[in-house]
Amino acid sequence: MSDVKPTGSPSKNSRWQQIFPIIGWLGQYRRETLINDSIAGIIVAIMLVPQGMAYAFLAGLPPQMGLYAGIIPLFIYALFGSSRSLAVGPVAIASLMVGEAVAQHAQVGTQDYIATAMVLALLVGIILLLMFVLRLGSLVNFMSHSVITGFTSAAALMIAFSQLKSVFGLSFPRSHSFPESLVLFTEALPSFNITTLAISALSLIIMLLSKYRLSFWLQAAGLSKTVASALAKAGPMFAILTGVLLVQIFDLDKTQGVKVVGDIPAGFPILSLLEVDLVLWQALLPAALLIALIGFLESVSVGTALASKHRERISPDKELVALGLANIGAAFSGAYPVAGGFGRSMVNDASGAQTTVASLITATGLALTVLFFTPWFYYLPTGVLGIVVIMAVLPLIDLSGIKNTWRFNRADALTLLTTFLVVLIAGVEIGLLSGMALSILLLLHRTSHPHMAVVGRVGNSEHFRNIKRFDVKTNPCCLGVRIDENLYFANTRHIEDTIMAMVAEQPQLQHLVLICSAISFIDASALETLEMLRDNLRESGVTLHLADVKGPVMDQLKQTDFLDHMGDGQVYLSTHEAMRQLCDL
Amino acid sequence: MSDVKPTGSPSKNSRWQQIFPIIGWLGQYRRETLINDSIAGIIVAIMLVPQGMAYAFLAGLPPQMGLYAGIIPLFIYALFGSSRSLAVGPVAIASLMVGEAVAQHAQVGTQDYIATAMVLALLVGIILLLMFVLRLGSLVNFMSHSVITGFTSAAALMIAFSQLKSVFGLSFPRSHSFPESLVLFTEALPSFNITTLAISALSLIIMLLSKYRLSFWLQAAGLSKTVASALAKAGPMFAILTGVLLVQIFDLDKTQGVKVVGDIPAGFPILSLLEVDLVLWQALLPAALLIALIGFLESVSVGTALASKHRERISPDKELVALGLANIGAAFSGAYPVAGGFGRSMVNDASGAQTTVASLITATGLALTVLFFTPWFYYLPTGVLGIVVIMAVLPLIDLSGIKNTWRFNRADALTLLTTFLVVLIAGVEIGLLSGMALSILLLLHRTSHPHMAVVGRVGNSEHFRNIKRFDVKTNPCCLGVRIDENLYFANTRHIEDTIMAMVAEQPQLQHLVLICSAISFIDASALETLEMLRDNLRESGVTLHLADVKGPVMDQLKQTDFLDHMGDGQVYLSTHEAMRQLCDL
Repeated sequence: MSDVKPTGSPSKNSRWQQIFPIIGWLGQYRRETLINDSIAGIIVAIMLVPQGMAYAFLAGLPPQMGLYAGIIPLFIYALFGSSRSLAVGPVAIASLMVGEAVAQHAQVGTQDYIATAMVLALLVGIILLLMFVLRLGSLVNFMSHSVITGFTSAAALMIAFSQLKSVFGLSFPRSHSFPESLVLFTEALPSFNITTLAISALSLIIMLLSKYRLSFWLQAAGLSKTVASALAKAGPMFAILTGVLLVQIFDLDKTQGVKVVGDIPAGFPILSLLEVDLVLWQALLPAALLIALIGFLESVSVGTALASKHRERISPDKELVALGLANIGAAFSGAYPVAGGFGRSMVNDASGAQTTVASLITATGLALTVLFFTPWFYYLPTGVLGIVVIMAVLPLIDLSGIKNTWRFNRADALTLLTTFLVVLIAGVEIGLLSGMALSILLLLHRTSHPHMAVVGRVGNSEHFRNIKRFDVKTNPCCLGVRIDENLYFANTRHIEDTIMAMVAEQPQLQHLVLICSAISFIDASALETLEMLRDNLRESGVTLHLADVKGPVMDQLKQTDFLDHMGDGQVYLSTHEAMRQLCDL
Repeated sequence: MSDVKPTGSPSKNSRWQQIFPIIGWLGQYRRETLINDSIAGIIVAIMLVPQGMAYAFLAGLPPQMGLYAGIIPLFIYALFGSSRSLAVGPVAIASLMVGEAVAQHAQVGTQDYIATAMVLALLVGIILLLMFVLRLGSLVNFMSHSVITGFTSAAALMIAFSQLKSVFGLSFPRSHSFPESLVLFTEALPSFNITTLAISALSLIIMLLSKYRLSFWLQAAGLSKTVASALAKAGPMFAILTGVLLVQIFDLDKTQGVKVVGDIPAGFPILSLLEVDLVLWQALLPAALLIALIGFLESVSVGTALASKHRERISPDKELVALGLANIGAAFSGAYPVAGGFGRSMVNDASGAQTTVASLITATGLALTVLFFTPWFYYLPTGVLGIVVIMAVLPLIDLSGIKNTWRFNRADALTLLTTFLVVLIAGVEIGLLSGMALSILLLLHRTSHPHMAVVGRVGNSEHFRNIKRFDVKTNPCCLGVRIDENLYFANTRHIEDTIMAMVAEQPQLQHLVLICSAISFIDASALETLEMLRDNLRESGVTLHLADVKGPVMDQLKQTDFLDHMGDGQVYLSTHEAMRQLCDL
């Protein structure tokens, strides 16, 4: 990751600019840029207010914590982040993971629960900074695409499903197992609250109409395209305002039992130092590590995708620092773990954000909300927040991905499905870890039975290919075997067995040429096997030769006495050379 | 493993012979074969009596269990085993592992402890049979040579050290941590028993003399070489007899406090059905799995080495069955887990064993010992057994292996040292598992930063090699990049970054040829990266081509629409073809 150039870095980087990418952008800042950033920032703020409260609910936290998560962390990210348009803040999947992790150590609704979520943010921040210091950003590479798709789809499904409870106005205990939730939901369903459901349905309609039709209508009514599409992004806010007004005017919370958000304390929390409880910190460590990895991965993926659109790149190292500090900021400002969100970042970019000044505007909007507008949300029905969450996570469920992966590679499809199912049945942490373990085991399995091909000469060229696929020339006294894999502990026995079986079938054989074009390293187990193979072949009257050995492998072999004991065996530059000299092919 | 031919299978295998390899051997059995088998069988029996008792002690079990482990399991192995000279029975490392595993569930010296060891044998047997049914014999391939060397050396060191307690006649509590044992030993050392130490020293001298000098002396005295070297193998038995006689004649156990073996019940144990306690079985499962794997691995390694000497092969599948049944036999005959031993198998082979009839003779010898001679061992000093164990395991400590591995491959050396140290500090199970995990992680790390080479044409040949290592021709409008690794989730990001950096450095570039000679598979994550790379390159005005794509990879790509979206990009049979057509190189 070290050779990646940061976004928009001019030819002459100042030291400060290395740390604060925003300095570089401000140098070229124009009035127009500010207008674009402001519009994007305001639109994201309007999305973030309902999402923040909804995600905090998802994590089992009071709504204001979701709002706090959109203030200090955003200010910090705006200073240190290398992506121009990544929208940091509370995100759905991290909220789900926080909820699962914290519920194992504290009771929902207690001060302990809140404190534990803050500690989790601190740990996530420290882990991200440690990953930067130890240059471990590449850890995220160990999560394969299939694991991520399976995990994200399952998590999104669980999140969407978990919201049905408030959408239908039901009450049943929280469960972290999807099948159990399903049973609890089915049992509670008959006692649904009709008014709550009606309000939820109304908010769904408002959001769908805003998303798909509002922009056309407003443009038809004469508004400019920019204003129209900006207003269309405010769907969740319209839904919320409608919900608040309905409940407040008709006293639905009292007369119809519609659950509302209730009191949200105005103003900022009094900053208190986090308690250092090493036993708790250690217990939270695995969850913090996974939240950090997933959050970093999501942020970098979205950030890279957006940067590519503008032919720029982000710096994963700078992102580790920015997200690490943002999470530490979250911990000390009464919030919970944050990351770069998929949906809001897309909106931020599409709305014209050109620098992280947009994030500063969003954060300011959230700060104003917290200071002045929280009483407005007292009558907000929780069912409306549920619809906000469902609309945000549904695009993450990737059914076509499963189909495409199945066609391309069964092992990947198996990993994807396993991750998906284990996340649903046993929870996000176990599911994610099983998926990663499975993808590694399948990789080992695949490389432990490598493809091996006997090759022959293609026409009069110097090119040698598989005798089973091409019409090639061979010579019975000379066998060219290409091993399509590195030689290492998991495959040495298979390779040895296969070669000895080939030799047994060809009694005229005098020379065996091992074509090493696909071998990039040889480990100690394989070296021992090669030595045994060489000696066993010699006893059967066959000489072992090597061809097409790559530089690094040759360097490795020269460190040992393998080459000295090859007897009449030679190392040839190419298969062609070997075959020409050994059997005139 | 399926294509391995069993030892000595004649051209026309009967069905019975498929199951019982011994039938094939008996068909060609001669009087001479019987004499050879008998000599080898008796020599191994003479080694096995003291070793059996000593290993049982090592496992915390009464000595007769080590003798039982040399009867029924050997009869069973003789019928089902595919190795002519593998000597099955109690082995040092498995005994250490049994001791560690059982001590977590029962108190040494109790009936529970004994029953748990028997259950462990049953589980080991079932696991081996399951590995056969599920064709999982290749699981052992996931233990690299370095893990095994590190593990074996550390286990041997622990075993040898654990015997110093009885060699010096000390008493201190058992500990499974090497550092703790070291402290306990040092604290207890001042109170050593001088008579015990003297007897131990005497037995060491007897064994060393038998091993290195006795054969010469006897030959000089006129005995035939065969008899002389057979007698030289009886060193442990001489040492034991000397010890027994000294203690018995001078009453050293009463007057000098020399610890002796004491009563060994004569005759066979009353067979009792094993108790089915699913909670215990589940708890023992991880240990049973590791004992099964290590035992199977040791047996197959020794068996293969011995078979190779006679230009034969063993069948790992048949070994799974034979060892599985032998362990189940052990469980139901009052014994504990067995495997093919390294030292005794070597002696068995060197003494002339030609078929498993030798094992039948050994087992008969053990049965006679159990029936008639156990009272003779009442006065056997435990210190002498300690010396027997130490002499047996010292050759397993492989210091030169560490040195050689370090020179060849640092990653392997790191694995070896880590396994060695963790086994010593945290015990065999954790040590073995950490070693395996580390070897897999290092493999992933290595393949996640693959070697990539820009290649050029070697002289006028059709061969293309690394521009950094060879004097080659290139063309600035055409870049040939060879990726020396499969494309999969852990390395896609690195590869993409490296290629984009190469492209950025070469402004004249029009064609990028990805040379796929070392790519044997592409997973779903990599396919996505390739698609992004293709599209990003196109936007930079560079066309992506592929060359030297192997058959299986081509089949995979054809399943997708990747090839349809390559635009002007082509797939060339060879690098030479690509370079000739694209830039006339």
